[in-house]
Amino acid sequence: MGYTAAVAGASGYAGGELLRILNGHPDIDIGTVTAGGSAGSALGQHQPHLTPLADRVIAETTARNLAQHDIVFLALPQGQSAALAEELDGDTLVVDCGADFRLSNPQEWETYYGTPHAGTWPYGLPELPGARAQLGDTRRIAVPGCHVTAVTLALFPGLAEGILEPEDIVAVGVTGTSGAGKSPKPHLLGSETMGSAAPYGVGGTHRHNPEIRQNLTTAAGQPVSLSFTPVLAPMPRGILATCTARFRPEATPSQLRSAYQRHYSDESFVHLLPEGTWPATAMTVGANTAAVQVTVDTSAERAVAVAALDNLTKGTAGAAVQSANLALGLPETTGLPAVGVAP
Amino acid sequence: MGYTAAVAGASGYAGGELLRILNGHPDIDIGTVTAGGSAGSALGQHQPHLTPLADRVIAETTARNLAQHDIVFLALPQGQSAALAEELDGDTLVVDCGADFRLSNPQEWETYYGTPHAGTWPYGLPELPGARAQLGDTRRIAVPGCHVTAVTLALFPGLAEGILEPEDIVAVGVTGTSGAGKSPKPHLLGSETMGSAAPYGVGGTHRHNPEIRQNLTTAAGQPVSLSFTPVLAPMPRGILATCTARFRPEATPSQLRSAYQRHYSDESFVHLLPEGTWPATAMTVGANTAAVQVTVDTSAERAVAVAALDNLTKGTAGAAVQSANLALGLPETTGLPAVGVAP
Amino acid sequence: MGYTAAVAGASGYAGGELLRILNGHPDIDIGTVTAGGSAGSALGQHQPHLTPLADRVIAETTARNLAQHDIVFLALPQGQSAALAEELDGDTLVVDCGADFRLSNPQEWETYYGTPHAGTWPYGLPELPGARAQLGDTRRIAVPGCHVTAVTLALFPGLAEGILEPEDIVAVGVTGTSGAGKSPKPHLLGSETMGSAAPYGVGGTHRHNPEIRQNLTTAAGQPVSLSFTPVLAPMPRGILATCTARFRPEATPSQLRSAYQRHYSDESFVHLLPEGTWPATAMTVGANTAAVQVTVDTSAERAVAVAALDNLTKGTAGAAVQSANLALGLPETTGLPAVGVAP
Amino acid sequence: MGYTAAVAGASGYAGGELLRILNGHPDIDIGTVTAGGSAGSALGQHQPHLTPLADRVIAETTARNLAQHDIVFLALPQGQSAALAEELDGDTLVVDCGADFRLSNPQEWETYYGTPHAGTWPYGLPELPGARAQLGDTRRIAVPGCHVTAVTLALFPGLAEGILEPEDIVAVGVTGTSGAGKSPKPHLLGSETMGSAAPYGVGGTHRHNPEIRQNLTTAAGQPVSLSFTPVLAPMPRGILATCTARFRPEATPSQLRSAYQRHYSDESFVHLLPEGTWPATAMTVGANTAAVQVTVDTSAERAVAVAALDNLTKGTAGAAVQSANLALGLPETTGLPAVGVAP
Repeated sequence: MGYTAAVAGASGYAGGELLRILNGHPDIDIGTVTAGGSAGSALGQHQPHLTPLADRVIAETTARNLAQHDIVFLALPQGQSAALAEELDGDTLVVDCGADFRLSNPQEWETYYGTPHAGTWPYGLPELPGARAQLGDTRRIAVPGCHVTAVTLALFPGLAEGILEPEDIVAVGVTGTSGAGKSPKPHLLGSETMGSAAPYGVGGTHRHNPEIRQNLTTAAGQPVSLSFTPVLAPMPRGILATCTARFRPEATPSQLRSAYQRHYSDESFVHLLPEGTWPATAMTVGANTAAVQVTVDTSAERAVAVAALDNLTKGTAGAAVQSANLALGLPETTGLPAVGVAP
Repeated sequence: MGYTAAVAGASGYAGGELLRILNGHPDIDIGTVTAGGSAGSALGQHQPHLTPLADRVIAETTARNLAQHDIVFLALPQGQSAALAEELDGDTLVVDCGADFRLSNPQEWETYYGTPHAGTWPYGLPELPGARAQLGDTRRIAVPGCHVTAVTLALFPGLAEGILEPEDIVAVGVTGTSGAGKSPKPHLLGSETMGSAAPYGVGGTHRHNPEIRQNLTTAAGQPVSLSFTPVLAPMPRGILATCTARFRPEATPSQLRSAYQRHYSDESFVHLLPEGTWPATAMTVGANTAAVQVTVDTSAERAVAVAALDNLTKGTAGAAVQSANLALGLPETTGLPAVGVAP
Repeated sequence: MGYTAAVAGASGYAGGELLRILNGHPDIDIGTVTAGGSAGSALGQHQPHLTPLADRVIAETTARNLAQHDIVFLALPQGQSAALAEELDGDTLVVDCGADFRLSNPQEWETYYGTPHAGTWPYGLPELPGARAQLGDTRRIAVPGCHVTAVTLALFPGLAEGILEPEDIVAVGVTGTSGAGKSPKPHLLGSETMGSAAPYGVGGTHRHNPEIRQNLTTAAGQPVSLSFTPVLAPMPRGILATCTARFRPEATPSQLRSAYQRHYSDESFVHLLPEGTWPATAMTVGANTAAVQVTVDTSAERAVAVAALDNLTKGTAGAAVQSANLALGLPETTGLPAVGVAP
Repeated sequence: MGYTAAVAGASGYAGGELLRILNGHPDIDIGTVTAGGSAGSALGQHQPHLTPLADRVIAETTARNLAQHDIVFLALPQGQSAALAEELDGDTLVVDCGADFRLSNPQEWETYYGTPHAGTWPYGLPELPGARAQLGDTRRIAVPGCHVTAVTLALFPGLAEGILEPEDIVAVGVTGTSGAGKSPKPHLLGSETMGSAAPYGVGGTHRHNPEIRQNLTTAAGQPVSLSFTPVLAPMPRGILATCTARFRPEATPSQLRSAYQRHYSDESFVHLLPEGTWPATAMTVGANTAAVQVTVDTSAERAVAVAALDNLTKGTAGAAVQSANLALGLPETTGLPAVGVAP
């Protein structure tokens, strides 16, 4: 048996990570790999770490090349997924690592992306309540943004159980450079990024803002307000989301911890660390895991919740495969690395 | 003419940075250099970049060895400064890079440091209102903590002018590894720090908390509440403080910017960047400068203010020399690097 | 079925990498994990990336604790393996990642290690001619040094086929910091290693010298002379061996390439890259692979051969498991990552 | 007093380093700054660390804009200097950081650069015998290549005194990313360079080959043969040249060390380190210094000589200013940083 999967965007970082994971997946065979500008060249030129796939020739990203697969993973630049997806058969499982189908509110979409809203697909964050049922019964999956997953996993339990207040949430997402992609720009050069930390998308302008708010609103059952700032740090992979929300005066720290234990104790990939141990991105490099910790700062009357994950694995490609597993009826953890590469 | 300065803690990172700056200072000659465990060895063994000083032999850190200098810079581990300072002549300018004399509230000191409060010295952050007058008339200076300077410079103007609210301030300080010192610990190994971002002192426990609150309370003219989380990032130097405070509803973004312009337009070392440009720590490596930017996130009803500086220069040794210049009656910028080393 | 393996030195870098690989090995179960100073603590404290093993309690490294396993992997500091190995049953497969049993010449051992020679075990570099036969029939394996594997794989084919001259070989091994271990020393701090390249063990003093010569002498069928210099570079993992040897005047570049193709075309883990593509350590991070390339510099009358590998994987723990597979009669590639984590 | 200098290529890395140094030079004022694509924009956009110069507007690189200065520093892409220089007045001191005028052998030039040879200018490596006299009497200076300076300083004394043999020299130059410039290319992205070491220009094809040979031939008084391989390492700045040459059998190690002492004891910027201490690039970041060490590997019958320097400072812009000082009759060390920034 075995499903076949096509990967669009195979020369980029998300595409490469999809292929790395799929290469070890026992139930999915890698079919056609496609890209834009690098079509026609060997995959090994672009992804030299994927030695078993080095000789695959990259096809052009067209619906025709992607059809005839059980699964199509899309790891494409913003705005290219919708048109392609429309041409793909309704029976094909389409997993979009891009943003096109993440937001349910068309107005939020238009405000942040400036294009017409393409629609909303079931959301590829299985750890959210209700998500597994939705993902088990769909042929279309929208994989969350990497910062979004980190902030959501950090704050969800506390908001869902009414221990954290939904107003005035603040999050800072320290991220590695691979999230910015492989297209060369001066500020992404090694010379510029090594030795420097710098914020971007400051003041609520980053496109992950509405998506984080969407998830946290679901959690809290009421609208949230959020200040989110991403910070580029000198590392290739990893997101560390440092999040803080007001702690309800009537709650206790042990209630907070219990909430996180309840939500995450049965999860395979989200690990609430032992008390006193804080997440580091190095714990998660190459693994489909997230490490979470939470505490209360009584002086500030705020809880501080931190999540670390690999932006390309649990933050993108791992989440895509995890969600696809659910849609295919496979065990959720199939083929997913549970262990990172450290140091 | 020319003053002579002794440097205690010469084998550490702050001591090395003091010597780097003093080596280029036209009015201060480097006298005795002292340390603890490395006394008796050549400075070049510990600070191989300070080639002109390579053959200096490190003396033991004692009051006797430090006496007979016009200035004594102390770059010592926590809690060693007070006893030494007491033995030094009242006419000697003593500049302490440690924490012993930073806090004015003895109870805050005892809560965070667990030892009796040694006292309070004029505070070496000349950019704070009133600081220059104090520094111009003292023989004792307490140099601020590195995170403290970054957060203070980011938020001061907005709080001082009543545009930012004092309650519920949140700051995340992304910092390089040199702030953790040169004493080898497993989590500070290159293998552990490269490729990883990790928080520490989470939940309001970091000792810079009371000092930040002290400065921001002075700015706001009323008590502030603060959630501050430091994050270790894979770079040797630099602090990026991403700070957010609630924006008073009646204020406008242009008022906010004007406040920062007013406070910083005459400063030699604090640079409000052009609108749309955000601070990066790489702008400040090796320079006694801080880069600042501020904006309003209307959706979150918060201002976001960011400051970048080099934790060893403007964050420690540069601030020490800048303050010493004022105490000596020298032009404030004397001998201080205005330009960083990039890339 | 399924073998059980004990891992001694489980809190260190090589031990952690062994556990990472074994955790994914279908035929080997992880039994007792042991260490020295960290005995009694949870493995998760030392190897937080190994989440599935986080709650394992580390036992003390004693022969008694290691006995009762089919396989014992030793990842111990220099000189501890011999005594332990002697106490372990002759039927137990003992795989030593340390140096104790690598050298066949007692005098070389004593010159470089200063202790009596413990003996010589079959050598865990299956890609060497004859090695697989030896490894298939042993209960004792000496895993090569990481630099040694890189230099050997770079030069072996050219020497074995008489195209490269055995005199006056020069190799420079640029290596990441994890090779220096997890024991904290000042020069290994992140502050010191980031942004710096520095040689060590210069002048033929590094202990990998006699081992490289041993392998190259086997290849050439006559004694070689070698200048080898390791260089520490700011990366956690990886070795890049840049090797050069005189090119026999009567040989041609295409003969050289053919020699490498012949030796490596059937290898699962050693990849001769397409002409014009040069190895980078990033191609191999976390994989049990080595990337090799070779060319001729006619002006210098030398061939330049380069090999890249991950010092902890193909350079240590991967080689250990690969060799163990052979000794157990399993397919050689079982459980070994063929694909690295990049970027 | 007071010369004025124009800097062409002001938005690049070498141009930025020239401006950093000139900003602290007591006898040279910065005049016009020019560039190609970034002409018309503020310097601060491209060199945000140069805060005192942030508002300078970049002019276009034309002879007209560069004229009317006492000194013109050219930090331009390959092949643009010659035409510009021709248009500049013979009385103007023109210092070219590019390659156009470095080689004296037109055939070597054409082989490596593929264009007609523009000529040969006095060579800006004052530490070479005879160089100071030439530089003191010229209006045209060719600044050496960065790898070239490192390898030359490492080997010169041993070759000049006949202790090292000129045949079969091997050098590996580990270099930071800034040497590859600021023009964005995929392989120079932070995501690609962090965590990876990779050779380039292998097999004698790098353009610094003929220039190194030229210098070493001068040193040895006879032709040399050289295998040189550059290796890109994950750091923004720095070159570590690990060089080895055959040691003449009749020489002694102490003769070798004496040769280096003789050549470098009076040098301000080249430091022979104490025996047993090896150069690290971190010793030299931002300083116009080179650190050198040498030893003999008796088993290999080779000497190993290592030099570390900052490719942008002593490797380019610092050498340019040092040479300009000589041409202007200023003390050679004027305005040049003798101390690096570490850690």
